[in-house]
Amino acid sequence: MSLVIVGSIGLDDIETPSGKVTNVIGGSASYASIVAQNFGNSKLVGVIGTDFPKENIDLFKEKNISLEGLEIVDGKTFRWGGKYNDLNKAETLFTDLNVFAEFNPIIPKSYLSSKYLFLGNIHPDLQLNVLNQFSDAEVTACDTMNFWITGAKNKLIQVIKKVNILFINEDEIRSLTEVENVYDAAEAILKLGPKFVVVKRGEYGAFVYGQDLIFNAPVYPVRKVVDPTGAGDSFAGGFMGFISKMNNLDNSTIKKAMFYGTVTASINVEDFSINNVKNMTIAEIEKRYKELLKITQI
Amino acid sequence: MSLVIVGSIGLDDIETPSGKVTNVIGGSASYASIVAQNFGNSKLVGVIGTDFPKENIDLFKEKNISLEGLEIVDGKTFRWGGKYNDLNKAETLFTDLNVFAEFNPIIPKSYLSSKYLFLGNIHPDLQLNVLNQFSDAEVTACDTMNFWITGAKNKLIQVIKKVNILFINEDEIRSLTEVENVYDAAEAILKLGPKFVVVKRGEYGAFVYGQDLIFNAPVYPVRKVVDPTGAGDSFAGGFMGFISKMNNLDNSTIKKAMFYGTVTASINVEDFSINNVKNMTIAEIEKRYKELLKITQI
Repeated sequence: MSLVIVGSIGLDDIETPSGKVTNVIGGSASYASIVAQNFGNSKLVGVIGTDFPKENIDLFKEKNISLEGLEIVDGKTFRWGGKYNDLNKAETLFTDLNVFAEFNPIIPKSYLSSKYLFLGNIHPDLQLNVLNQFSDAEVTACDTMNFWITGAKNKLIQVIKKVNILFINEDEIRSLTEVENVYDAAEAILKLGPKFVVVKRGEYGAFVYGQDLIFNAPVYPVRKVVDPTGAGDSFAGGFMGFISKMNNLDNSTIKKAMFYGTVTASINVEDFSINNVKNMTIAEIEKRYKELLKITQI
Repeated sequence: MSLVIVGSIGLDDIETPSGKVTNVIGGSASYASIVAQNFGNSKLVGVIGTDFPKENIDLFKEKNISLEGLEIVDGKTFRWGGKYNDLNKAETLFTDLNVFAEFNPIIPKSYLSSKYLFLGNIHPDLQLNVLNQFSDAEVTACDTMNFWITGAKNKLIQVIKKVNILFINEDEIRSLTEVENVYDAAEAILKLGPKFVVVKRGEYGAFVYGQDLIFNAPVYPVRKVVDPTGAGDSFAGGFMGFISKMNNLDNSTIKKAMFYGTVTASINVEDFSINNVKNMTIAEIEKRYKELLKITQI
């Protein structure tokens, strides 16, 4: 089944202990769509300015990602600059919304037959807007971040009430629910509506919590994290790509999706920006998936 | 096969967000031996003062833990006081070595037929001393702590060169090896001699690293951590108890031992001191082990 991905598309300047890159592809929808495309058919919704390099658009085209929902607007593309002093947390150096400030995501009619929808980390108002346009989506998921938990909590909760799957960091779920124990916090999210909440714990992996499911995925043992940017989006891209391919939400599929997300995130962080993501193949994903089984299965 | 456990036996004062207890059983050997006894035959080596409450000695006896190696010396028992502001790290309020200051562990002759030896967290000099007395032990393991890494590093490395299994925290292995990536740090330990290094990551579980093995064990999802004291010792007790029962060091046994250690540590932390540890049964351990399989197996 095809998967619609809505989120930011940007140009990043990134500095990590491994080096520095400028003007590289960024944004939640960029990472998630390129990763998810390994599993099937991704349809992108986003906005870029006229300064967005043509080779970047060509990359999406080469990957056969549907671009009917990609709006190109006069002006500059969304830009983000970040620096990682340690690899667990980015310090934002600047955020220039540019054309993203006026983003009003429109889901093309041709996308509305998709059953799967992933809402990357954008303003909950936009996420709600998309959910309202796309009421036929059978499986909806969203990501978020601390910025919205602090600044648009009520709207975010409206989004969470409507989605089936929430992707969220450990710190964020504690902040959002004001519950310290992460399993209790996840339980509180389920009460709002979602079937599953995926709690991401950085270098310690992630777990998914459902009505009759707790399942843990450790990280794939990466030897050198070069750039963590987009790891969460790559995780979501792998997870959503796999469940849309399987067209299933049973616990067994969700467990495997946790491992696919883990694997795609691990490939992401081993190079800057989307350098590894754009070269990712399903063969490499399957190889790491098997290695992850060895690390976890008795 | 029986398991000899050498370590501290003490009386603790503990304060956590859940409350405060005083004069309760503590010490690495206390936790490890009572836990390991669920799997077979533990033989204790340690020292206490004449003030050690008789009911505590009776507890070891009721558990059928061999006490021939328990020395009772005129004077006061080792005492430790700690406070947990958050549950990840204890602040030591006091350490009174008392009779432990002169501890010179002697392995009784009747213990020397044991094939398994666990050296709890004590001075590396004492660990070396025991290893020299017990050169027939086929499987040896030790735990340690930052205090010895800082204060007795060369001696500790001598110990590590002689043991088959090292239990160590994530921060400690980084500090000991001066290697930031934990897998590379574990690799550096293997080069010193051990077959396996078990890296403990607190609420994020643990992993074991061997020549052709990386295996991850998440924590058992505990809803309320009451007192983390002894969690590492209970982990080691479960791990060593299981491998001594199986009398095997193959990868499959080591993987299962990681889960047994995880389970016994999880039972420990749900109450103060050894309150839960002393009532632990193999039935409860097996129940949680099965639950841990559900959380991790595809």
